[in-house]
Amino acid sequence: MSEPVNLAEKFATFTEHWAPRLVATYNGNDVRIVKVAGEFVWHAHADTDDFFLVLEGELDIELRDRTVTLGPGELFVVPRGVEHRPVARRGVEHRPVARRGEVRMINIEPGGTHNLGEGSPQRPVVEG
Amino acid sequence: MSEPVNLAEKFATFTEHWAPRLVATYNGNDVRIVKVAGEFVWHAHADTDDFFLVLEGELDIELRDRTVTLGPGELFVVPRGVEHRPVARRGVEHRPVARRGEVRMINIEPGGTHNLGEGSPQRPVVEG
Repeated sequence: MSEPVNLAEKFATFTEHWAPRLVATYNGNDVRIVKVAGEFVWHAHADTDDFFLVLEGELDIELRDRTVTLGPGELFVVPRGVEHRPVARRGVEHRPVARRGEVRMINIEPGGTHNLGEGSPQRPVVEG
Repeated sequence: MSEPVNLAEKFATFTEHWAPRLVATYNGNDVRIVKVAGEFVWHAHADTDDFFLVLEGELDIELRDRTVTLGPGELFVVPRGVEHRPVARRGVEHRPVARRGEVRMINIEPGGTHNLGEGSPQRPVVEG
């Protein structure tokens, strides 16, 4: 049986960037939390949409034809097959120094989605 | 192409309770926001999990053998087939009077999930 998840408590259990934690599953999809800083690599998921909900910080999701910027309380779904590159913004922020430039977010993808190709900075999903 | 969603802006566009707004889709699932107050009806979804993320207020998700309470930043997935009843708590809260006892949350279910049976207080999902 699933358990309730307190996101702040889960975020407090790790410090690594681009190292998603699995906090719940929904119909075979991983509900993950992740801390990111700097830029990811360009990639696309041929078979699945990619759900982002930013909780803290600012994230640019670069697309080939535009950039979508998400702040806290903003979500975006990258449609399947669409190339994108997430980049954490380094703006002036009223947050503790250790968290400046860091983005905390929820990401939902089908379980086992790791199709980022070689050279990906992302680490395997760990049970949170 | 999907657009970014600012949740606060979307919540500001309606006042009704138990009237979900569709704000995005993810792999055929509806990403909905909803304001609730008071109690819902007991129900179960035979074919799907039911994802809840509370953003404001406190929600009891009553199960037949226990109650899961969610505050802001807490999520829970009700497994498929499990009977549950969401009930917004009326605790002492430091919020504007108009919002006391109201819960704002994100709910994810497959598109077209309306299998709550007769007497359901829930209204159809509206494009948000």
